[in-house]
Amino acid sequence: MDNRPIGLFDSGVGGLTVLKQIQKILPRESVIYLGDTQHLPYGDKSKEAIIRFSIENTKFLLRQNVKAIVVACNSASSVAVEVLRETFKVPIIGVIEPTIKCISRKKTSSVLVIGTMRTVRSGVYQKKLQELNLGIEIFGKACPLLVPLVEEGAFLNKGSLLYNALVSTLEYYLGEYRDRVSHIVLGCTHYPAIENEIRFVMDGVELIDPGECAALELKEILEKNDMLSEEKSRFEKFFVTDLSEKTVEVAKIILQREINIEEIYLPES
Amino acid sequence: MDNRPIGLFDSGVGGLTVLKQIQKILPRESVIYLGDTQHLPYGDKSKEAIIRFSIENTKFLLRQNVKAIVVACNSASSVAVEVLRETFKVPIIGVIEPTIKCISRKKTSSVLVIGTMRTVRSGVYQKKLQELNLGIEIFGKACPLLVPLVEEGAFLNKGSLLYNALVSTLEYYLGEYRDRVSHIVLGCTHYPAIENEIRFVMDGVELIDPGECAALELKEILEKNDMLSEEKSRFEKFFVTDLSEKTVEVAKIILQREINIEEIYLPES
Repeated sequence: MDNRPIGLFDSGVGGLTVLKQIQKILPRESVIYLGDTQHLPYGDKSKEAIIRFSIENTKFLLRQNVKAIVVACNSASSVAVEVLRETFKVPIIGVIEPTIKCISRKKTSSVLVIGTMRTVRSGVYQKKLQELNLGIEIFGKACPLLVPLVEEGAFLNKGSLLYNALVSTLEYYLGEYRDRVSHIVLGCTHYPAIENEIRFVMDGVELIDPGECAALELKEILEKNDMLSEEKSRFEKFFVTDLSEKTVEVAKIILQREINIEEIYLPES
Repeated sequence: MDNRPIGLFDSGVGGLTVLKQIQKILPRESVIYLGDTQHLPYGDKSKEAIIRFSIENTKFLLRQNVKAIVVACNSASSVAVEVLRETFKVPIIGVIEPTIKCISRKKTSSVLVIGTMRTVRSGVYQKKLQELNLGIEIFGKACPLLVPLVEEGAFLNKGSLLYNALVSTLEYYLGEYRDRVSHIVLGCTHYPAIENEIRFVMDGVELIDPGECAALELKEILEKNDMLSEEKSRFEKFFVTDLSEKTVEVAKIILQREINIEEIYLPES
């Protein structure tokens, strides 16, 4: 038994979709969330910068006495998880490896990974799947417009001009993969917010949410190490490195409820 | 006469549209460009963070021996120019005040300012125009999707799905202002790239480019202070605080030519 909270970090508030999955799958766990909004989005940043930011984020969460770290951000998961494991002692769960595990349990011959430019170009999903030698064909497509479309709430009013722009954009990014893939990995924390629209454009394709995969992996690790919480009243705390009006708005769009967010200053190492 | 270069900074490479205007209007001036891509985009950041970044950017440019500073970024111009003037001795030219001067010389009764959320919400154009008491009605509209649409090159292939998404998005943001304004201020450095599409949606409306206004103001200040360059062979140098593939690509889309970009590390003060 270990009643300390889970630490969760992301480049912004998109990782709140991962928080949702953790709270759903592990309802007794408390969570401390850190959004490194000062450096948002990580998808545009270099590998070296993302590693530097990830180390500072982890140090902050450890100072809050967390028992495990979930790296919600795909960009950070793809470049920083190994370094974090070498540097810190607590369990570090990224979103990539648990997703690979999820995929390997599905009956699929062709998967499309969508995400930011960095996640897709890193080819991290492709490489890790190839190591497993399952004969799955894997495609990657960078979709940089989807995050701002989610943040503008384009999915909220069906039939509006912005909703139409969202559907056109999804058709632009995904149309060529119709009838070519059976599964799509939502390789960016924002995408679960538009899963209905993605299903509409890609009728019959099954979606894989890395946030859900990571929450399942976290559960397995906590169980194995006898680290599950037995608290009946869990808590949640939200921190960001730069608190703007937009941060508050996007958090509300993604979580569909109001939360209290505190700003903290993290030095660059 | 002063042959030292002009220093120009922006949160990213969008400010290259301002560089274009400076090189067009002041063909003998050398320019040192700094894109603070590590913190891009400023539009999402708090006032305090933007001021901190702007001071570091200015210090870097002064170490390169520049004779004047142009703040290309609208977000930084709206919150940091006064602090920079109090802190440093060289002429500091933002994009806001020169644009107000441009507007005040036009025959207009109604202006729409489009830009990032921060620029529009700050109401800086509105406040400064009201001080002049010209009886101009001024509207503001935040258009956060336009920057990523420019960066995806949505304007490059007329009639494509993404071009259609761009036109839908412009219609969504601007449609309600048709027949209500005579001028639109392109209050974000990226927007000159889609001026044709904005004109298409807002037929008959005149566009005001703050980059052009700032370059004209810079010319006036250099002339007045006898600081114009007399070099026949000007140079240009490009620095960013984080050099990613995307930075290189977007710079090429905006400038329509290849440039050599150097990465530098700026400490946070």
